[in-house]
Amino acid sequence: AHQGFPEVIFGLGKRAEQIGAIFQRLAEKNNPVLATRCDEDAYQAVQSLVPQATYHAVARVISYQLPDLAEGQGFGKIAVLSAGTADLPVAEEAVITARAMGCYVEPIYDVGVAGLHRLLDHREKLAEMDALVVVAGMEGALASVVGGMSERPVIAVPTSVGYGANFGGLAALLSMLNSCAVGVGVVNIDNGFGGAALAATIVRSSYRRSQAKAE
Amino acid sequence: AHQGFPEVIFGLGKRAEQIGAIFQRLAEKNNPVLATRCDEDAYQAVQSLVPQATYHAVARVISYQLPDLAEGQGFGKIAVLSAGTADLPVAEEAVITARAMGCYVEPIYDVGVAGLHRLLDHREKLAEMDALVVVAGMEGALASVVGGMSERPVIAVPTSVGYGANFGGLAALLSMLNSCAVGVGVVNIDNGFGGAALAATIVRSSYRRSQAKAE
Amino acid sequence: AHQGFPEVIFGLGKRAEQIGAIFQRLAEKNNPVLATRCDEDAYQAVQSLVPQATYHAVARVISYQLPDLAEGQGFGKIAVLSAGTADLPVAEEAVITARAMGCYVEPIYDVGVAGLHRLLDHREKLAEMDALVVVAGMEGALASVVGGMSERPVIAVPTSVGYGANFGGLAALLSMLNSCAVGVGVVNIDNGFGGAALAATIVRSSYRRSQAKAE
Amino acid sequence: AHQGFPEVIFGLGKRAEQIGAIFQRLAEKNNPVLATRCDEDAYQAVQSLVPQATYHAVARVISYQLPDLAEGQGFGKIAVLSAGTADLPVAEEAVITARAMGCYVEPIYDVGVAGLHRLLDHREKLAEMDALVVVAGMEGALASVVGGMSERPVIAVPTSVGYGANFGGLAALLSMLNSCAVGVGVVNIDNGFGGAALAATIVRSSYRRSQAKAE
Amino acid sequence: AHQGFPEVIFGLGKRAEQIGAIFQRLAEKNNPVLATRCDEDAYQAVQSLVPQATYHAVARVISYQLPDLAEGQGFGKIAVLSAGTADLPVAEEAVITARAMGCYVEPIYDVGVAGLHRLLDHREKLAEMDALVVVAGMEGALASVVGGMSERPVIAVPTSVGYGANFGGLAALLSMLNSCAVGVGVVNIDNGFGGAALAATIVRSSYRRSQAKAE
Amino acid sequence: AHQGFPEVIFGLGKRAEQIGAIFQRLAEKNNPVLATRCDEDAYQAVQSLVPQATYHAVARVISYQLPDLAEGQGFGKIAVLSAGTADLPVAEEAVITARAMGCYVEPIYDVGVAGLHRLLDHREKLAEMDALVVVAGMEGALASVVGGMSERPVIAVPTSVGYGANFGGLAALLSMLNSCAVGVGVVNIDNGFGGAALAATIVRSSYRRSQAKAE
Amino acid sequence: AHQGFPEVIFGLGKRAEQIGAIFQRLAEKNNPVLATRCDEDAYQAVQSLVPQATYHAVARVISYQLPDLAEGQGFGKIAVLSAGTADLPVAEEAVITARAMGCYVEPIYDVGVAGLHRLLDHREKLAEMDALVVVAGMEGALASVVGGMSERPVIAVPTSVGYGANFGGLAALLSMLNSCAVGVGVVNIDNGFGGAALAATIVRSSYRRSQAKAE
Amino acid sequence: AHQGFPEVIFGLGKRAEQIGAIFQRLAEKNNPVLATRCDEDAYQAVQSLVPQATYHAVARVISYQLPDLAEGQGFGKIAVLSAGTADLPVAEEAVITARAMGCYVEPIYDVGVAGLHRLLDHREKLAEMDALVVVAGMEGALASVVGGMSERPVIAVPTSVGYGANFGGLAALLSMLNSCAVGVGVVNIDNGFGGAALAATIVRSSYRRSQAKAE
Ligand SMILES: Nc1ncnc2c1ncn2[C@@H]1O[C@H](COP(=O)(O)O)[C@@H](O)[C@H]1O
Ligand SMILES: Nc1ncnc2c1ncn2[C@@H]1O[C@H](COP(=O)(O)O)[C@@H](O)[C@H]1O
Ligand SMILES: Nc1ncnc2c1ncn2[C@@H]1O[C@H](COP(=O)(O)O)[C@@H](O)[C@H]1O
Ligand SMILES: Nc1ncnc2c1ncn2[C@@H]1O[C@H](COP(=O)(O)O)[C@@H](O)[C@H]1O
Ligand SMILES: [Mg+2]
Ligand SMILES: [Mg+2]
Ligand SMILES: [Mg+2]
Ligand SMILES: [Mg+2]
Ligand SMILES: [Mg+2]
Ligand SMILES: [Mg+2]
Ligand SMILES: [Mg+2]
Ligand SMILES: [Mg+2]
Repeated sequence: AHQGFPEVIFGLGKRAEQIGAIFQRLAEKNNPVLATRCDEDAYQAVQSLVPQATYHAVARVISYQLPDLAEGQGFGKIAVLSAGTADLPVAEEAVITARAMGCYVEPIYDVGVAGLHRLLDHREKLAEMDALVVVAGMEGALASVVGGMSERPVIAVPTSVGYGANFGGLAALLSMLNSCAVGVGVVNIDNGFGGAALAATIVRSSYRRSQAKAE
Repeated sequence: AHQGFPEVIFGLGKRAEQIGAIFQRLAEKNNPVLATRCDEDAYQAVQSLVPQATYHAVARVISYQLPDLAEGQGFGKIAVLSAGTADLPVAEEAVITARAMGCYVEPIYDVGVAGLHRLLDHREKLAEMDALVVVAGMEGALASVVGGMSERPVIAVPTSVGYGANFGGLAALLSMLNSCAVGVGVVNIDNGFGGAALAATIVRSSYRRSQAKAE
Repeated sequence: AHQGFPEVIFGLGKRAEQIGAIFQRLAEKNNPVLATRCDEDAYQAVQSLVPQATYHAVARVISYQLPDLAEGQGFGKIAVLSAGTADLPVAEEAVITARAMGCYVEPIYDVGVAGLHRLLDHREKLAEMDALVVVAGMEGALASVVGGMSERPVIAVPTSVGYGANFGGLAALLSMLNSCAVGVGVVNIDNGFGGAALAATIVRSSYRRSQAKAE
Repeated sequence: AHQGFPEVIFGLGKRAEQIGAIFQRLAEKNNPVLATRCDEDAYQAVQSLVPQATYHAVARVISYQLPDLAEGQGFGKIAVLSAGTADLPVAEEAVITARAMGCYVEPIYDVGVAGLHRLLDHREKLAEMDALVVVAGMEGALASVVGGMSERPVIAVPTSVGYGANFGGLAALLSMLNSCAVGVGVVNIDNGFGGAALAATIVRSSYRRSQAKAE
Repeated sequence: AHQGFPEVIFGLGKRAEQIGAIFQRLAEKNNPVLATRCDEDAYQAVQSLVPQATYHAVARVISYQLPDLAEGQGFGKIAVLSAGTADLPVAEEAVITARAMGCYVEPIYDVGVAGLHRLLDHREKLAEMDALVVVAGMEGALASVVGGMSERPVIAVPTSVGYGANFGGLAALLSMLNSCAVGVGVVNIDNGFGGAALAATIVRSSYRRSQAKAE
Repeated sequence: AHQGFPEVIFGLGKRAEQIGAIFQRLAEKNNPVLATRCDEDAYQAVQSLVPQATYHAVARVISYQLPDLAEGQGFGKIAVLSAGTADLPVAEEAVITARAMGCYVEPIYDVGVAGLHRLLDHREKLAEMDALVVVAGMEGALASVVGGMSERPVIAVPTSVGYGANFGGLAALLSMLNSCAVGVGVVNIDNGFGGAALAATIVRSSYRRSQAKAE
Repeated sequence: AHQGFPEVIFGLGKRAEQIGAIFQRLAEKNNPVLATRCDEDAYQAVQSLVPQATYHAVARVISYQLPDLAEGQGFGKIAVLSAGTADLPVAEEAVITARAMGCYVEPIYDVGVAGLHRLLDHREKLAEMDALVVVAGMEGALASVVGGMSERPVIAVPTSVGYGANFGGLAALLSMLNSCAVGVGVVNIDNGFGGAALAATIVRSSYRRSQAKAE
Repeated sequence: AHQGFPEVIFGLGKRAEQIGAIFQRLAEKNNPVLATRCDEDAYQAVQSLVPQATYHAVARVISYQLPDLAEGQGFGKIAVLSAGTADLPVAEEAVITARAMGCYVEPIYDVGVAGLHRLLDHREKLAEMDALVVVAGMEGALASVVGGMSERPVIAVPTSVGYGANFGGLAALLSMLNSCAVGVGVVNIDNGFGGAALAATIVRSSYRRSQAKAE
């Protein structure tokens, strides 16, 4: 891992014991550790070896030494916006990842474009952020609307939420790649981790510069 | 054609002379005639046979006896909204089609979601309409935003405007099919004619009922 | 929800208890409530909190205060046509949705195009309707045939019924989007709810006009 | 070529002189010759070498010694049905191919499903045929309707006629592969030659049997 | 069903009791009955109502009054060829279907093109057939090779056998649609029933002619 | 446009005179102006109205008042890396866009992964940058390799360079979306403008913070 | 099987008893036997009949008389490289296959391009090999990097490891087919067997030649 | 370029003068030079600078110092097989590439599987080769048949020859990736260069070994 980053385990396709063993080895370095895409069984395996580990059930993430930052602390501020209830697992994965990478996170949920006023109510909050992560499935229109409203970098995370001609998130993915708004980058479908990691990379790079400047 | 509908010629894949000959035959019935997807050559061929025919260059449509309705006239009111400049040919095809089918049309152009305020300025106008046709390419998010703002039926027309992962309009098409808004129906990519024809069918059905009721 | 519309819960991806809790909250407003894509477990959870709730097993819908309209009552008449037995869950979802939205519904099932006479027998019935919802999987040809037979707006709902080169409903979806009939709009694969909601939006808009006219 | 079959040249991707040279060589065998997918230039090249060759402009086919059979002559009867005007090149390629293979052909054009009565008018004619070739683009629904009406083998030829979500004939192809009617086989998009060749193979096999029986 | 055809139930998506009830109703007409895509449970349900029903486990078919024809009996001869072991369920579905439709069937299994000699050994047998059904997954090359070897109509049935870039049978389907051999028609992926039904339709049409001739 | 950003015209699908007229109107505001996707004709039209406009032929961009920044000037440093010669138009579009948005740009071309040493030679240079734009077609592997080498945000721009199974840039797009490296965001195929605009948005946000800090 | 090759059973879609029976029959020939894609149950069935059979759990392969070659023995040397942990089943299938075909195998695991130094550490080892098998999922960039580093034939095996826009291995497959490196051939997704079999075919051909030469 | 390899220029997307200039620079090193995907114009530009350059019109290749090897000379023997006339440009590109890389090449053309005997006539010739390159479009079945007949490594090159459901070579590509024959590797659609380069890499590796052995 890059210096100061948490160690991250990608749980998909690993057995519970494997995850447990890797988690324990990494936790011994006294660095934050994240394991994503983990079910309850994986957590049992981890917890029996690392009792301080925490399970975030919605996000399917196991964490260790997750920093708990107040506003103004950490490398900067990231908002994680999500469109609907079913997008929550991906949004929460993003929230925990950004926190683990040392950022203050503002979750702004349930602001899908079919009820635009809910999003517009957050205008001021958004203006204070250093980067935005937009998590949306179905037609993924939220990324374009947020991109149009804000001058900050927007990282769009399409989700596989939907059915039929959604084709497992393809609809939202193509929508976000074709966004008419300026300043929008896209990561893989359901990749809450990757979206937040890019946002955190942006914020950390920026922090480093402002520190250099201040000296 | 259904009773009272214009006769329509689909110009794609027909030669100029063919279009001319069919147009003349239909015009002789003294009904409105439309020929869609026609270039200048087709117009020359038509005009030499039917001098009163008009060419709508942006829409690539030739019309004959297109009714010119004032607000309040005709079967009802249809707004045709479009997102960007490049969507205009499809939007104009829709406008002319809806007029030919006896509806009053309100064109509302250049209201893409990256500049939301331009769309929000038309809120009141939209509330007066009987049906809405939304023409958009790229990520097609306009259909969802309009669908969320209005209680009227929304007919979404994806366009092939865009490039790369747009895949000839697939991005907008999937986006519109997966719209999180209620009351949105979709027609084929670039099918301004079909979108307007469905909207006019809706408005005409409704008119028939209100006439029946009034009697 | 729009005024006078039922409150609707989309059950897919929500846990039984979540559905129960939301259902109870909405039922307290004394408005019709629908929960779509719900299994028996979800119904148990709802019923323990809202004993008057009804489960429609084929449609996988839970309803509360579903209006029971006789012909001539409500905002207008909608026919829901379906091609084959396997399309019934989607067709029934459409029927219940349209009823919940205050329309009189005529179900016309098992009228696939391979046995055309069964469809032709319903010609007169169709002529009395205000809007048609056509539910079909496999090659989805029913939408084109019905669109050609009727002057009413047709809302086509492709289903994922089929296998192999059906690709989860893609065959019927593309077929319907490319319909050679005029006046056909399409919604997402298996979206019985959305198809009926659009039809009801059309019929309600029309009703509002006829009421205005009659006054 | 199989015995008694015409020699066939597939013109696509061959230069005019190449086609001319091959055509001449095959014509010298005093067998019928067909060259498909040929433009005017190819015909010039052929005709200068084989003056008796004929060009079928719509079908883009050059023929030599094409038999001209009256009803009741040849190996059997094949109907070639087509949906719309733009399908004619493929339909005509099929007609000429079937004739070249010694079958009597009945062309039945412009019987798309949006105007069902035109098709129904041909019911009796269809019942007299030995095999049916159905040529249709857009949503390709004609194959299913014809398949449902007839007990003869139906060979469905999807065409690339259409635009947008037609994806070059994919819509009609998938529609035909998923036909709910029994007794329908499919060939490649725009493959009028292949569809007719299969129909002729069927009819010739059948003729051989009836000859054997009669002896 | 067409006259003299078996009644056929498509089991996919129907519950065991539904299949049982339909089967019983059809069996009462004293006609052959087939139910395809049925598991053991469906058979239990059928057998308790129609004790003479037979279950064909590999083919997943339940039959009633399946005719048992010797060579030379019935409407004609159909060979069902298959490439590999995993294609057997589809091949067997084809075999039983063709038999139910009154044809004599010759199964020729395990003749995939990677071991060409096994196929070449059957050359003479193939020449005696009236129609050929070729069942193959993976790259589906068998259809082209058989089409090249034989002058009879070839009905190609792609199967979903394979993995990875097979995409559920798409590889074999496209391969067969693009066959360079003349006289090959294609049905849906895994559609053993449909392939055999088309072959039987061909053979029955031919039989009818030869009977007419003989009289 | 956001404050301090250049005005941008998207030339694709606009006629030369249209581009000329819009360009002139925007240039009168005395702000930098960019027109992307413009051919020589468009430049003639612009230059006759705005003589100081410059044409960047490889990038197909017309610029006005493009700032010429030395290292250390502007909002920050962006490297634009490209894999092969054919990627240059997209890379140059990115370079000019980033400059127009006030960033110092370091072009690092011809560093495709098949000759890894050429990329490795730039390691130190990369470490000095604030953000990286990686432009690559074919298999797009460069984004992953650069992402693994650097701790800065990487914006990946897939190009349509390639043929066959490249499917117009799909190969590079999917490759970049699935990158195993952390901190990589993706924009649309061939979208050099969008990739650079996102990178500049990142760098400008960061600059704003460091200014705030320094005060 | 070709002479000197192991007998191979493809376990996918075969029942445990079937695999057991075939395995026993082949083992009786006293040749090496492999059964790929086998679960524990299949192994139980095999072992009860062929007690000396071995189960390779990660590779899901059952082997019999697998040769155990030291470096320098066998037909030649093959390296099997893999990118990530989740690629191990495919990589191990390749390792065992190449061994069964008489090659000395060097497994080089966990050398994904995001940590390039790990791969570069193996440069010398790679130079000693006769052929390389590269197993990678996600974006599959490893094949291009290895292809650029080595003058040996590279057989690329894309895996289905990944999610979202990976589309079951399509991303890695397209990436490898579009590799900018010279000397790379591709096999089906997850086809460790096929990749190793091709590599072994190469090495064995080469061995045959060097034997001929030495004589 | 690897040592002893020709220098290769990929002409697609380069202007004639660019190709001329690069060609001249490389020719000065007195090594063989190839430029692929070049039209007549590019050849004019090259020839004016390097008069000894040769143009291979069918292959669209410009060569310089192409070795002319007799059987038995060079690194080994490669057969290039092709299915149909339209595959020749790709096949010829392969032939010239393999020659430029120092291999003796045997072209075996027009051996498509629809006329199997033509292929079977070459059995003995194939057995003498060190590697086989199979070039085929349409359904690409030739690769499987050749793979089944031969124990040599087979490199399959799908071509874009075909139309309709060929989807630009996708049909042949998928067919070849799913080949049921052992020892088949695939390169990109129309990539005659890449297929021959891999075959030559195989043969050269093998030659190196046999040389080492002989010493
Ligand atoms: N732009 C269009 N897109 C799709 N369908 C159209 C279009 N314009 C006209 N049509 C339809 O094409 C029919 C006429 O087709 P045709 O007889 O081939 O000229 C009309 O009745 C319309 O239904
Ligand atoms: N329009 C067509 N589409 C597909 N195949 C064709 C067509 N016309 C001819 N063919 C086939 O192409 C073969 C001749 O190919 P060639 O030798 O390349 O001219 C004929 O024997 C036919 O099987
Ligand atoms: N090459 C490009 N690709 C995508 N979007 C672009 C490109 N160049 C400019 N744009 C966007 O297009 C907008 C202008 O569009 P228009 O008003 O149609 O000229 C700019 O504000 C940019 O957001
Ligand atoms: N994992 C695998 N993937 C693809 N092909 C395989 C695999 N394992 C074995 N095979 C092939 O399958 C053949 C055996 O198939 P079967 O006769 O169905 O067991 C072998 O000769 C191999 O060519
Ligand atoms: Mg923005
Ligand atoms: Mg609405
Ligand atoms: Mg209609
Ligand atoms: Mg029929
Ligand atoms: Mg044949
Ligand atoms: Mg990085
Ligand atoms: Mg190499
Ligand atoms: Mg072989």
